[in-house]
Amino acid sequence: MQFISYKNGEKSTFGAINSVNEIVDLGAHLGCENLAHALKQSSFDELKNLAINKSTDLNLNAITAYRAVVADPQGIFCVGLNYEEHRRETKRTATANPTVFLRLPNSQIGHQQPIICPLESDCLDYEGEIAIVIGLGGRRIKAEHAWHHIAGMSAYNDASVRDWQGHSTQWTQGKNFMSTGAFGPTLVTTDEIRENENLVLETFLNGNLMQSASTDMMLFSISELIAYISSFTVLTPGDVIVTGTPGGVGFKKEPPLYMKDGDEVTIQVSKIGCLTNTIFKEIEKF
Amino acid sequence: MQFISYKNGEKSTFGAINSVNEIVDLGAHLGCENLAHALKQSSFDELKNLAINKSTDLNLNAITAYRAVVADPQGIFCVGLNYEEHRRETKRTATANPTVFLRLPNSQIGHQQPIICPLESDCLDYEGEIAIVIGLGGRRIKAEHAWHHIAGMSAYNDASVRDWQGHSTQWTQGKNFMSTGAFGPTLVTTDEIRENENLVLETFLNGNLMQSASTDMMLFSISELIAYISSFTVLTPGDVIVTGTPGGVGFKKEPPLYMKDGDEVTIQVSKIGCLTNTIFKEIEKF
Repeated sequence: MQFISYKNGEKSTFGAINSVNEIVDLGAHLGCENLAHALKQSSFDELKNLAINKSTDLNLNAITAYRAVVADPQGIFCVGLNYEEHRRETKRTATANPTVFLRLPNSQIGHQQPIICPLESDCLDYEGEIAIVIGLGGRRIKAEHAWHHIAGMSAYNDASVRDWQGHSTQWTQGKNFMSTGAFGPTLVTTDEIRENENLVLETFLNGNLMQSASTDMMLFSISELIAYISSFTVLTPGDVIVTGTPGGVGFKKEPPLYMKDGDEVTIQVSKIGCLTNTIFKEIEKF
Repeated sequence: MQFISYKNGEKSTFGAINSVNEIVDLGAHLGCENLAHALKQSSFDELKNLAINKSTDLNLNAITAYRAVVADPQGIFCVGLNYEEHRRETKRTATANPTVFLRLPNSQIGHQQPIICPLESDCLDYEGEIAIVIGLGGRRIKAEHAWHHIAGMSAYNDASVRDWQGHSTQWTQGKNFMSTGAFGPTLVTTDEIRENENLVLETFLNGNLMQSASTDMMLFSISELIAYISSFTVLTPGDVIVTGTPGGVGFKKEPPLYMKDGDEVTIQVSKIGCLTNTIFKEIEKF
């Protein structure tokens, strides 16, 4: 099963989408527009049952826009340096623990929405990643139980404003510009993915392959990330873990390669789908 | 005027509190329990007017507990190394821009609530700070206009789990353990503080003065912080900026001094009040 967050006309909602692209508008049935909010009232299994038992409301062709798959997570935990090749290209020291930073929900956008290169910089870089959405919350989740806490997976472009990322030791400002965190196109539930299945992650810029890796190359596995993050915080349904980018980012090329107005960037993940966004260079304040 | 978030019996709410400690339960009038949520529907001025025009509902003595002044901010922007003495004691390089990291709302607690030293560590340290709450949102707010975007100020103990903070270059995990961000006791609105008024910030551990500084010693002023943060994100009413800790933290003493079970820590800010919390050492999973 897949979940989708979208706009229908001006209305923001979310739903489940079947194999022939027909959508059940779960937001309308539940009276709320955001998936994480719905998960405060209903379990993920209840949402899946609702999707199965309701008739479809509209076709994918009829939506106005994709939104970030989870538009309102309580936490977006991004993992840095989780592939050895990327760690080496950034000349960072290996650490015994994951590198975790946070994104704010308002930095996110959906599939086919423009990633904005802000007025303040011309150093916008892609980072293709796999995102995990928490279905069952918890604190101090053991790695061996972690799979059962995952609702599903999606693709993520953790686009980074590199000069701002380097303003200080902390990366917050380079990772939280508005409309830089692309998340989608849909959430593929764990019904469709085997536990520890090896997924291939690729990033294409204007059709050229820039990054390629698979989940078995992660330094900290998805289960280990869930265990680590839930040791300091309570993970809540709808929370997002963005699991890190492989080698091949633009700013470590010589000369550095940054995304410019009109560029098209696609994050492709096997079993998950393709997340495509076009770069929009901001030219005046909005 | 002051705002307070509290529990009345089992019910979470917020209100305005007058000079004789009588509270107007704004949450009951507005049908919502959290200040930032209320600010999505009403402006901060409307909340102040409502407080003036309603009769009081209960005395401060009758509340069950203080909650974090803003329990549900969209963003909690914490500033590191914003006083020269603390920058030097941590041996960090001076930077041309503020050091910004994020806290999650679920790491926060209110005045008189226990700060939890987690199972995972014995290296819990205080950080006395002044917190700003945004009343009027905006993007790319100029420093000279920043004061008008502030609803008020409060005290904050950005308590840090030092060994976890050092797990990687990013401080997220050391700054987001549950029940480590103490915020209160109340929000003192800018009606009661002059623009650029010099405020004195002091931290006491078991009655001993550990940190002492004033806002004129900040490396980046409150206005500059608002300008910087709003350059990458849209600030939203209810957002919190925690403006940094002065020198004198425990982990830079020789030998390092960490807070232990039963310790009492107070952050005192002139014109704002005293935030007091007792340390609770977690001894089993909860």
